[in-house]
Amino acid sequence: MTSTSRVEAFSDGVIAIAITLLVLDLRAPAESEHSLAYGLAHQWPSYAAYVVSFLTIGVMWVNHHAMFTLIAGVDRTLIFLNLLLLLAIAALPFPTKLMADYLLAGGWDARTAALVYSVLCLAIGVAFSAIWRYVVGNPHLLESWVDLDIAQATVRRFGLGVVVYVAAIALSFLSAPLTLAVHLGIAIYYVFNQLPAGLTQPSRIRPE
Amino acid sequence: MTSTSRVEAFSDGVIAIAITLLVLDLRAPAESEHSLAYGLAHQWPSYAAYVVSFLTIGVMWVNHHAMFTLIAGVDRTLIFLNLLLLLAIAALPFPTKLMADYLLAGGWDARTAALVYSVLCLAIGVAFSAIWRYVVGNPHLLESWVDLDIAQATVRRFGLGVVVYVAAIALSFLSAPLTLAVHLGIAIYYVFNQLPAGLTQPSRIRPE
Amino acid sequence: MTSTSRVEAFSDGVIAIAITLLVLDLRAPAESEHSLAYGLAHQWPSYAAYVVSFLTIGVMWVNHHAMFTLIAGVDRTLIFLNLLLLLAIAALPFPTKLMADYLLAGGWDARTAALVYSVLCLAIGVAFSAIWRYVVGNPHLLESWVDLDIAQATVRRFGLGVVVYVAAIALSFLSAPLTLAVHLGIAIYYVFNQLPAGLTQPSRIRPE
Amino acid sequence: MTSTSRVEAFSDGVIAIAITLLVLDLRAPAESEHSLAYGLAHQWPSYAAYVVSFLTIGVMWVNHHAMFTLIAGVDRTLIFLNLLLLLAIAALPFPTKLMADYLLAGGWDARTAALVYSVLCLAIGVAFSAIWRYVVGNPHLLESWVDLDIAQATVRRFGLGVVVYVAAIALSFLSAPLTLAVHLGIAIYYVFNQLPAGLTQPSRIRPE
Repeated sequence: MTSTSRVEAFSDGVIAIAITLLVLDLRAPAESEHSLAYGLAHQWPSYAAYVVSFLTIGVMWVNHHAMFTLIAGVDRTLIFLNLLLLLAIAALPFPTKLMADYLLAGGWDARTAALVYSVLCLAIGVAFSAIWRYVVGNPHLLESWVDLDIAQATVRRFGLGVVVYVAAIALSFLSAPLTLAVHLGIAIYYVFNQLPAGLTQPSRIRPE
Repeated sequence: MTSTSRVEAFSDGVIAIAITLLVLDLRAPAESEHSLAYGLAHQWPSYAAYVVSFLTIGVMWVNHHAMFTLIAGVDRTLIFLNLLLLLAIAALPFPTKLMADYLLAGGWDARTAALVYSVLCLAIGVAFSAIWRYVVGNPHLLESWVDLDIAQATVRRFGLGVVVYVAAIALSFLSAPLTLAVHLGIAIYYVFNQLPAGLTQPSRIRPE
Repeated sequence: MTSTSRVEAFSDGVIAIAITLLVLDLRAPAESEHSLAYGLAHQWPSYAAYVVSFLTIGVMWVNHHAMFTLIAGVDRTLIFLNLLLLLAIAALPFPTKLMADYLLAGGWDARTAALVYSVLCLAIGVAFSAIWRYVVGNPHLLESWVDLDIAQATVRRFGLGVVVYVAAIALSFLSAPLTLAVHLGIAIYYVFNQLPAGLTQPSRIRPE
Repeated sequence: MTSTSRVEAFSDGVIAIAITLLVLDLRAPAESEHSLAYGLAHQWPSYAAYVVSFLTIGVMWVNHHAMFTLIAGVDRTLIFLNLLLLLAIAALPFPTKLMADYLLAGGWDARTAALVYSVLCLAIGVAFSAIWRYVVGNPHLLESWVDLDIAQATVRRFGLGVVVYVAAIALSFLSAPLTLAVHLGIAIYYVFNQLPAGLTQPSRIRPE
């Protein structure tokens, strides 16, 4: 078991890079007979996808940070689970591009893009959940001041997060724009709600 | 309320990546009958946009750093406001590309590019201002050695920054090259002027 | 001889960026008469290459980290060897792209892509080995608590790693998909096996 | 005057990103009637340019690090000079691409590419020199244990570095491949020679 500090620094790096690479999908409109203003206005799905994915990855960073303040050390399995989590987060610019390109395509292509986006978010939720389950099942990896009852309750909370993304997958079959809006709502909800009640509360008990 | 150190590290990472991604818009000239030297010389707007955006983001980094030395802790709202700020800063390579491509296009397309650039800068200025207003309105988030009167005076200073960017927006309707030059001027001005008087002065009072 | 901390931070940065840039090779399918779902399904080699390279670079990061916890200081030669190692790791997105593009091409092109991938992995293995040999041959660079006998035994272990990559090169002449699968196997093996026995064991002897 | 730690971290970030972005110019060969192996072999200038620029930026990182271990604090002018230095270093992937594309073009286009590369390196050398001159001229920015005589002697050493890049500019008018080889030589020379004698010697005097 080694300290979490370098795992956290590496994870922060990967997440910060993934969130910043999103801008590479904002491109100048292809040349056309229309004005630049017209071209820019018509690629609004790119901006919407950028904003939603930026906030989504941003919240995942906050979440990751909050989780690792409760973790005292990492073992090999945890490093591997964290690599899988980063693998999924770092891939998010790809379905973001799909969403931007196909949001208004309608039909099955738009639904496919929304589906890929939602499935990847679900995978990230599952990876978060797996990490937390593993840590709670190996409590010597937790900081000594963490209340194990609260930690176990949080496992269920992560389960809720997974359910939300399953709902987003179902919604993808109905409407891509609506699915994107729901992902925006999830990101904003998570900024303000989940973490204080579940994950960062124990730090208030922190003696020092 | 948690410590600012990991928020600062994450913000530094995003800003450092955004500033370095600017180089990706410096491309080899498209093949033509002209010499490479001719091609390189004729894409000078790309170099100008690179320099202006590099210094602009660089100054935003200095600004962000100076601001967070005065902040002792972050809460959920502040994390969200900071995410919105980073969302806008990380998007700057996009209008930089537009400026490079359309600076000499003349007509409404050049003005549109300048306008998008200026509007994004204004959004960044507003986000900075919102963070500082929020922190001053919740002084338990400030370091204890910060003089609240000076901090409040600084709110007005940020207001001035916003006014400058509104002026840049107005200028965008006249001339894109002039607007780019003004953004260069703003960046250089901010390196040497704003921060010492407004934001870093309190640190001189720092007891230790 | 100077401390390793900034060399580690720089290496972490380069590795974190290289691993995250892999996503740039996941592209939206070219427009065609087929559905988006069809196009996405048919570029599965891109996803396979992404996963394998992500885990491979991830393991190299773990490996690098484990190695440098045993190193107390760096001299000029070690800095140069580490730069060569980073040069090779940072290049991995290139053969990853080749693998993705040519995995199913069959014939010599597929084998060429697999060969380039495997040769670069071998180069990385050799660079790791060279660093460790150099450090063991200059034991004042090692932490004082490191058992030199174990450290020397580890040199042979690295030799084994090199042999594995030589085998991957031989396999490249037979089948590109099989070679990719073997690289996945190597990455997963290294996460769970090599490091605990070879490199991190000394830390258990650590007095403090 | 504030501490250098966050300036160093930001500079490290920018340099680590610039060095890793170099890989984006290693592309799969355009489709042709030739084999992949043929296509890969014929883009060897890309690999040569990658290696030379990687080592060049790597040495600049070592150089930057060595310099800032001697600097105790930064003021506004130093932050601005450092931003200009980073602006130039972060731009190096651009002439690297030009070198890769035009190395074998012959005639004035090859010389132009070599010239742009060499001029940017000179600009970086001048920026390093300017930073060091400024710091030596404002010795309260130096660590107290730095011997000012050695520091001043180092100013001349930096002058030598500038002379070397001026020679590379002159050589650019003769041969692009030779110029690239010289840049490789400069990078390797700097790894092993300049810094120990000039910049890191004072640290041996360090009392603690």
